[in-house]
Amino acid sequence: MNAQTATSIPAYAAPTAGAPLERTTIPRRPVGEHDVLVEIKYTGICHTDIARARYGLGATFPMVPGHEIAGVVTAVGPGVTEYRPGDRVGVGCMVDSCRRCDNCRDGYQQFCVNGAVETYGSTGRDGEPTYGGYSTHIVVDQDFVLRIPDGIPLDEAAPLLCAGVTLYSPLTHWKAGPGKKVAIVGLGGLGHMGVKIAHALGAEVTVLSRTLNKKDDAERLGADHFHATSDPATFTQLAGTFDLIVNTVSAELDLDAYLSLLGRDGTLVNLGVPPGPSSLNMFSLIGGRKTLTGSLIGGIAETRDMLDFCAAHGLGSDVEVISGERINEAYERVLAADVRYRFVIDASTIPAA
Amino acid sequence: MNAQTATSIPAYAAPTAGAPLERTTIPRRPVGEHDVLVEIKYTGICHTDIARARYGLGATFPMVPGHEIAGVVTAVGPGVTEYRPGDRVGVGCMVDSCRRCDNCRDGYQQFCVNGAVETYGSTGRDGEPTYGGYSTHIVVDQDFVLRIPDGIPLDEAAPLLCAGVTLYSPLTHWKAGPGKKVAIVGLGGLGHMGVKIAHALGAEVTVLSRTLNKKDDAERLGADHFHATSDPATFTQLAGTFDLIVNTVSAELDLDAYLSLLGRDGTLVNLGVPPGPSSLNMFSLIGGRKTLTGSLIGGIAETRDMLDFCAAHGLGSDVEVISGERINEAYERVLAADVRYRFVIDASTIPAA
Repeated sequence: MNAQTATSIPAYAAPTAGAPLERTTIPRRPVGEHDVLVEIKYTGICHTDIARARYGLGATFPMVPGHEIAGVVTAVGPGVTEYRPGDRVGVGCMVDSCRRCDNCRDGYQQFCVNGAVETYGSTGRDGEPTYGGYSTHIVVDQDFVLRIPDGIPLDEAAPLLCAGVTLYSPLTHWKAGPGKKVAIVGLGGLGHMGVKIAHALGAEVTVLSRTLNKKDDAERLGADHFHATSDPATFTQLAGTFDLIVNTVSAELDLDAYLSLLGRDGTLVNLGVPPGPSSLNMFSLIGGRKTLTGSLIGGIAETRDMLDFCAAHGLGSDVEVISGERINEAYERVLAADVRYRFVIDASTIPAA
Repeated sequence: MNAQTATSIPAYAAPTAGAPLERTTIPRRPVGEHDVLVEIKYTGICHTDIARARYGLGATFPMVPGHEIAGVVTAVGPGVTEYRPGDRVGVGCMVDSCRRCDNCRDGYQQFCVNGAVETYGSTGRDGEPTYGGYSTHIVVDQDFVLRIPDGIPLDEAAPLLCAGVTLYSPLTHWKAGPGKKVAIVGLGGLGHMGVKIAHALGAEVTVLSRTLNKKDDAERLGADHFHATSDPATFTQLAGTFDLIVNTVSAELDLDAYLSLLGRDGTLVNLGVPPGPSSLNMFSLIGGRKTLTGSLIGGIAETRDMLDFCAAHGLGSDVEVISGERINEAYERVLAADVRYRFVIDASTIPAA
C-alpha cells in the first residue's frame, strides 16, 4: 500500500456477529508522523478472534480479527526512530493506549484505565474503527510495534504476540524457574506455549489435560509430567504439589479442586474468563494461604522481553499455516480442538476482493 | 493445681453443641518434661468459640472454649528452658503440631499437614481431648507457649493471641506499610486490631463498615478514613484505590464489588469462611492482575513477633472484662455486635464447680 494516503487493502472480515468471514477491503490510515507501515506476513488465529467474531463481545463490525501479527516494515513516518523498512516486526493485542494513566506509565498498557485500543473491533483515538491482522498491511504507532529477533521464523513468531506473552507474563511474574513446580492446565494454543516457556525458565512442568491424548506431544514440548484431569486419582495423587498453576482453559473450572493441588503459598492464575460466575469455597484459599489471581496478555516492554527470551531459547509456536480461504474451516477446527497448536494465516494468500 | 498429678480444675463448658455453657471441672495432665503450667488470668471470647460451641464444627464435647489465653507460669517441667515460674505468657489457637512436615519446619504450624492440635475441641497427640481457656489453669508444651512482653496488660494481651496475630500475619505478609493504602472490612474484634496494627505499620488505613456508626471509634483506633458499605457511592468513589483489603467479615461478601476497590496488583485477603460457596467473576481478577487470597491465624514465631510488635507500639485489644457467670450473656452480645471490641473473661471469677 501507499504510505502517503489512506488506502483500501484486502482483508477477511465478519460483516456481522456470527456471520462467516468473507473477503473484503478495509481502509488503513496514511502513515503518520510516528507510524510504522507493516506488510503482514502471518497472522495467528486466536480463540478470542472466534469468540468476538461469533458473539461480538462489545466489538465493532465489520470485524477484521487478528492480533497475532508478524511482518516486515515497508515504510515509517518521519518521527519514527526505532524501526526502518525491512525490519521484522510484530503487532499484538493493542495498538494504542492513553499513555498518561499510572498503568500506562508503569508499562501495563493492557490495564490502561482509559482503555487500551485493541488491535481490532475497537475504536482508535482518531475515532476510526480498528481492523486486525487478517489482511495484508497494518499501520501502527511505533510505540506498539515489537521487534521480532532474527532467530524466530515469522510464522512461528506470530502467535507469540498474544499466546506467547499471555503465558510469559504470569510465568515470570509468579517466578516459574528452577526448583518450582508448575502446572499448565489445558494444552492448546496458550498451553503449549506455557509448557515451552516454563520449561525454558527451568521449572518442573506438569501438564493437566482432560485426557492422556496429548501426553507424547507435551513431553516433546518440554513437560516433565502429564496427568488426566478426567481421572479423579489425579487430584488425590497431586494434592499439595504445585507452586504455580496456570489455567489456560476458559471453560468453568472446579476452582476448589485445582486449589487443592497447590502447596502452601501457591498461586492459581486464570487466563480465561468462563461464561458465568465461578464458585469458590473460601477455605480453599485460607487453608495454606493460597492465591487465586488472573493475568491479561502483557505490557509492551514485557512483550519485547518475551520475544527476546523466545529467540534466546529457540522458542516459537507450533503452527499449521493456512491460506485465507480456509479461515472459516480453521475456526471450526479450533472449536473442535483439532489443531496443534495454532493456525496461522499466510497473508500472501489473501487476494484482493 | 498440683504440677505432679493430673488434676481436676474449674472451667466453663458446653456439654453438647448448642447447650449453654455451665460450670464444671476438667482434667489437666500432669506437667511433663517439656510442659509449662499456666495459671490463666484472662481469656478472650472469640467468634470461633461461639460458632463451635453452638454448631460443633468437628469439635469434641464437652467443650471448654478459649484460645486467647493470657496468664502466668506457675510450674515448668525439667526440660523447659525458655520459661520459669512468674513469667507472663500466652497460649493461642494451637497447643501442638506434628513438627515434622514442611509447614511445621517452616514455622507455619497452622498449616501442619498432619493437623495442628487446636487448643480446645481437638484431640492431643496423647489421645486426650483438649480443653481451652475458660478455666483456671492449662498445661502446654513449651514450644506453643508465647511470652507476653511487660508492656501489655494481660487482659488486653489475651485477644492478641488469636485476633492480633490473625491480622498481623496478613498485614505484614502483604506488606502493609508507608505508602500503602489498606482497607479493613468490618470493625469488630478482628477489625479493630487490624486498624491498630495497620496504622502502627505506617499504612494509610480505611475502615469499610456497613454503617457510619463506628466512625469516631475507628478514627480513635488509628483509621484515616471511614466509609459505609451500605452506601453504593462508596464503591464508585473508592474504585481502584487500595493496595490491600483485609476482610474480617465471615458473612458472604460481594467479592466482585470489593475487588473493584483494588488497584493493579492489589490483594483481597479473607480471614473468615462464609457458610456457603462464594461467587466470583473471573474478570474481577484478570482486569488488573488482582489477587484473592486467605489467611489463617499465624505461626508460632510470627505470633511472638506480633507480641513484640504490639508491645513496641503500645498496642493491646480494647476489652470489656467480664466474670465467668456472664459468658452466655456475652455470647448473645457478641452475636449482636454489642461489644467494643472483645469480651475477656477474668479467670479469677471462675468458681470451683
